[in-house]
Amino acid sequence: MFRCNCVETEYALRVVDEKVVAAAVPSSRTKVAVVGASGYIGEELVRLLLAHPHVDLVAATSRQFAGKTLADVFPRFSHNEILQAGVRVVDLSADFRIKDATVYKEFYGNDHPAPELLSDAVYGLPEIYRDQIRDAKLVACPGCYPTSILIPLRPLIRRKAIDRKRILVTSLSGVTGAGRKAEADYLFAECNESMRPYGVPKHRHLAEIEQELSLLAGEKIVIQFTPHLVPLNRGILTTIYAELAGDVVAVDPALVFQNAYGQEPFVRLLGDERLPDTKNVAGTNFIDIAWKIDKRTSRLIVMSAIDNIVKGASGQAIQCFNLMRGFPEAAGLI
Amino acid sequence: MFRCNCVETEYALRVVDEKVVAAAVPSSRTKVAVVGASGYIGEELVRLLLAHPHVDLVAATSRQFAGKTLADVFPRFSHNEILQAGVRVVDLSADFRIKDATVYKEFYGNDHPAPELLSDAVYGLPEIYRDQIRDAKLVACPGCYPTSILIPLRPLIRRKAIDRKRILVTSLSGVTGAGRKAEADYLFAECNESMRPYGVPKHRHLAEIEQELSLLAGEKIVIQFTPHLVPLNRGILTTIYAELAGDVVAVDPALVFQNAYGQEPFVRLLGDERLPDTKNVAGTNFIDIAWKIDKRTSRLIVMSAIDNIVKGASGQAIQCFNLMRGFPEAAGLI
Amino acid sequence: MFRCNCVETEYALRVVDEKVVAAAVPSSRTKVAVVGASGYIGEELVRLLLAHPHVDLVAATSRQFAGKTLADVFPRFSHNEILQAGVRVVDLSADFRIKDATVYKEFYGNDHPAPELLSDAVYGLPEIYRDQIRDAKLVACPGCYPTSILIPLRPLIRRKAIDRKRILVTSLSGVTGAGRKAEADYLFAECNESMRPYGVPKHRHLAEIEQELSLLAGEKIVIQFTPHLVPLNRGILTTIYAELAGDVVAVDPALVFQNAYGQEPFVRLLGDERLPDTKNVAGTNFIDIAWKIDKRTSRLIVMSAIDNIVKGASGQAIQCFNLMRGFPEAAGLI
Amino acid sequence: MFRCNCVETEYALRVVDEKVVAAAVPSSRTKVAVVGASGYIGEELVRLLLAHPHVDLVAATSRQFAGKTLADVFPRFSHNEILQAGVRVVDLSADFRIKDATVYKEFYGNDHPAPELLSDAVYGLPEIYRDQIRDAKLVACPGCYPTSILIPLRPLIRRKAIDRKRILVTSLSGVTGAGRKAEADYLFAECNESMRPYGVPKHRHLAEIEQELSLLAGEKIVIQFTPHLVPLNRGILTTIYAELAGDVVAVDPALVFQNAYGQEPFVRLLGDERLPDTKNVAGTNFIDIAWKIDKRTSRLIVMSAIDNIVKGASGQAIQCFNLMRGFPEAAGLI
Repeated sequence: MFRCNCVETEYALRVVDEKVVAAAVPSSRTKVAVVGASGYIGEELVRLLLAHPHVDLVAATSRQFAGKTLADVFPRFSHNEILQAGVRVVDLSADFRIKDATVYKEFYGNDHPAPELLSDAVYGLPEIYRDQIRDAKLVACPGCYPTSILIPLRPLIRRKAIDRKRILVTSLSGVTGAGRKAEADYLFAECNESMRPYGVPKHRHLAEIEQELSLLAGEKIVIQFTPHLVPLNRGILTTIYAELAGDVVAVDPALVFQNAYGQEPFVRLLGDERLPDTKNVAGTNFIDIAWKIDKRTSRLIVMSAIDNIVKGASGQAIQCFNLMRGFPEAAGLI
Repeated sequence: MFRCNCVETEYALRVVDEKVVAAAVPSSRTKVAVVGASGYIGEELVRLLLAHPHVDLVAATSRQFAGKTLADVFPRFSHNEILQAGVRVVDLSADFRIKDATVYKEFYGNDHPAPELLSDAVYGLPEIYRDQIRDAKLVACPGCYPTSILIPLRPLIRRKAIDRKRILVTSLSGVTGAGRKAEADYLFAECNESMRPYGVPKHRHLAEIEQELSLLAGEKIVIQFTPHLVPLNRGILTTIYAELAGDVVAVDPALVFQNAYGQEPFVRLLGDERLPDTKNVAGTNFIDIAWKIDKRTSRLIVMSAIDNIVKGASGQAIQCFNLMRGFPEAAGLI
Repeated sequence: MFRCNCVETEYALRVVDEKVVAAAVPSSRTKVAVVGASGYIGEELVRLLLAHPHVDLVAATSRQFAGKTLADVFPRFSHNEILQAGVRVVDLSADFRIKDATVYKEFYGNDHPAPELLSDAVYGLPEIYRDQIRDAKLVACPGCYPTSILIPLRPLIRRKAIDRKRILVTSLSGVTGAGRKAEADYLFAECNESMRPYGVPKHRHLAEIEQELSLLAGEKIVIQFTPHLVPLNRGILTTIYAELAGDVVAVDPALVFQNAYGQEPFVRLLGDERLPDTKNVAGTNFIDIAWKIDKRTSRLIVMSAIDNIVKGASGQAIQCFNLMRGFPEAAGLI
Repeated sequence: MFRCNCVETEYALRVVDEKVVAAAVPSSRTKVAVVGASGYIGEELVRLLLAHPHVDLVAATSRQFAGKTLADVFPRFSHNEILQAGVRVVDLSADFRIKDATVYKEFYGNDHPAPELLSDAVYGLPEIYRDQIRDAKLVACPGCYPTSILIPLRPLIRRKAIDRKRILVTSLSGVTGAGRKAEADYLFAECNESMRPYGVPKHRHLAEIEQELSLLAGEKIVIQFTPHLVPLNRGILTTIYAELAGDVVAVDPALVFQNAYGQEPFVRLLGDERLPDTKNVAGTNFIDIAWKIDKRTSRLIVMSAIDNIVKGASGQAIQCFNLMRGFPEAAGLI
């Protein structure tokens, strides 16, 4: 079962009809129903599911349920009932990414709607939690920014190759990242020929980014993160600055990345000669990663590019779904 | 006094605060107040007025009056009172372009709010009505599409150089033409990488286009007109097809255009070798006109480019204002 | 075997290395080699072939053969030898679309390089020539504009539903249509915020459009055609004006289109209520067709949208390839 | 006299005709000649000079001198002769920004063409060197990135408000920043829907940025700088990260910026509530500056926006020209 909403909680609350649901019943070809696939993430999920070799998309609803909750439409799918009914869930919303209900409230402003489920949720980043995802009842798919940041940082954190106290991240996002909100800020003529930072200095995705980095490090990690909105539809480009100093272990980033991701189906390592470009990952589930060591500053600069709607959302959800169902991990994604 | 709204009446009704008012009092430097300059046309009007050598912009209001009518904000500026108070008006809305209240209702769907003023209004196209504009009490500025169509067609119609019964017009518009509406259709991600016709086959601007062409011809003229929305901010590109047959007088288009517009300050004739490009008129009050005779089809193809917000709206309004005040016609426009 | 170049002959002459070749040998899974896949069409062809269920892409070459002809690279693939060797060819270049070498020279400026092959070529529009394509030795894939024009016009011409003497076509193209030429006219900053007509009044694609319309009509047809360049990557939007007068047979366009294309796998009929938008066909092999009757002018307006690189080039080439090989027509295209 | 070229030396060498020259002779209305105004910077310079109240543009040359050097066209304007002739120069190229010929060679790859003039050059940032510019014989206008970085950092460096050893800068640039090069990397279809870092980790502008920061600080300063290319025409958005730690003096950024720039005609301080957007400075000579203190990380984040072609090049050149000629500093710029 897939459940989908948008980056911002305010929006999610307004468009509860935008949930995307796929009821996964155990069969060789999984029957899937999609509820409210009218956002960009939902639309892409439908596109991918229609081409998925092991999925039958048996129903898709959209505007007719506008204003209704998932529970209104499918009463047996209200929050708690879903898991009680034995359905395994891939959740594309932000609801179950944060393990601590207090942090959730700090970043999202409201009490968590179902705190008793938080401990069940597995963070849906296959490159980190592949084994847990296989057996998870509830997978909380990461946000688009966290995907572009956590995959590059994970092996560097684990290998203690960078100073964990001085990580800075700049990200650029295409406008689909704002969802299909009818707000003046996202009109064509407001975004075209415009570049702007936003969510400075405490964007909501920081909560899950720092949670996951801290788990990887075994200690509390705080980072700097600045997202920017730029005029294109698809993509996130992330530039990470890390220091090669202090207690850092001297390692070759190429080796670190190769060891970590040489076998990953959707991670492409560009090395230290090429640089990423979002157009090369548009419409795909790949993350492209490049790096440069700056000897002048003793810093490691790591750059990544993803399609925010595919690897940053719907594609990653299907990757998790494939793991949960025992399908080839790349099924329907190439 | 300037009064401004947007292309679509529905929108105009919702944003009655978007009126742009400039009270013209007789002095060497005219004092101007702008009410509700929050649309693209109003914003550009303010920009141009701030740089106008004979204007003092003494007040500008915007969101604070949202939801209020012009009469709410400046009670003495309610529809009829304005003219009764002796203020001369340049109206950028669609309200006074159509001389026939029945045609207005046919195209705009509602009864005209002040039919008694229709006979006073002068259509604000200086290239056609320069003398009448000078003495007008009420100038109704043309829409953006009509400007790009009427200026090229006027001398051809007058000289009977084309078949008046078979005129076809295709226009392409940037997205600011839709105004600053918070509607999903005009979101960045809906317009970027999108091209679409709209208003087929009877866009509202047809009413004023055919009215003015018929006046020029001395007989009823019906044309074909198809607007398209393309992903850029500013500009209208119009391609006109006319037949050189029937009762047509054989004339050299270069001579016709040169005679008509050789002295016009804002008409640039590109001839039959060069083709127009909206980027060359962006931010300016110029209209660029080019033409080609296709001997294979016996048709004359005339192409024009304007900035929809300047020559198609605010710049043309100032051109009219200059005429009304006796200022140099190009004041504040170059 | 696929062979690919770009719209303009000048470019084609400069980049003879951009040929895309796929040698089709009779096997259940066809082995394919691609030579010079560095243009937008070649790139998309490679992408589609990689995902094609019945194709093995065994080789792909690109810049290393820059400046060399196909015959330099694969000597046995020089123009005549190819067919003599028994290889069946899908040609994406303009070389074999025109049946008359004189017309070819009129529109392309040079003598045809292999006039003796012209009579063998089948025009690669499956919606018109499906049966002939199946058995063809040499398929000449249509240009992007002709695809968007011929499919909508074919049933109207055949049914005599429109005046064949007064057909006008306006098309809008994304910038990939110009190929990957390093020319200043196609730089980002020259195309962004720009709209421009070009090729007025006699674009090269007119040659094949009028050839095919004349064949359908059984008489010489001359049309008006004006292409425009607009700032987006992918897509062609075509608006066709036709008159419902003269010897025209009164028919319901919905019936005409339904009869002609109701069963076509890649033609989607939008009817007379919806309008096409290129974003809905981007990345797909579909053509979307809509129409409106304008009673005021007695004209039928037909609008179509395609992805210029897929249905307008590489996708259509694969559709032809599937027919030639006996594969399902949509294999690798959904 | 204005002299203009593009960001990259390779390009500058290829387009020696792109020099923009304005001979300033002492008169109330300065006579100006422009040579080779065919790049984006030259084009904008011509546009601004045409509207300048104290300038007569008496000549403008362009393509006809392609391939010739300035000295070929105007022999008396060869490098050394210019200053010997008593002409004061505003140079928009990168040639005289670097005071140390060794550093010039390190970053630009070739020997400096006129090292004897380096000591005469004044760095053309009026917000820092206003007095020196007034009397300068040779003004070397800063690059676009340095303008967006040095103005925000200057008062923070001077007031010791930030840790000078840990300054990181991320910049985003529109595509005009690459000049009018006919290179495939800057084609519309390569830049549209693309985001990419470049020049990592040692972009040429670092040389002048670190030179000027070091001069301000009185000690060697090394920073991290990463430029990115994003799909719009005009603008640079810069995000600067600085640490509020170590020997830093605790100061209120609002006071620091207000004291430094409260009276500057082209610096707009947005404070810590609003964020910059390049569309608000497009076509203007303004730099918008905003800031946020992140208490979680003890960092100050400063963000700036400029039009890369105006404040980042031609507008700033005219600002310097006005100072040199004793005209009002904003003449021709508002």
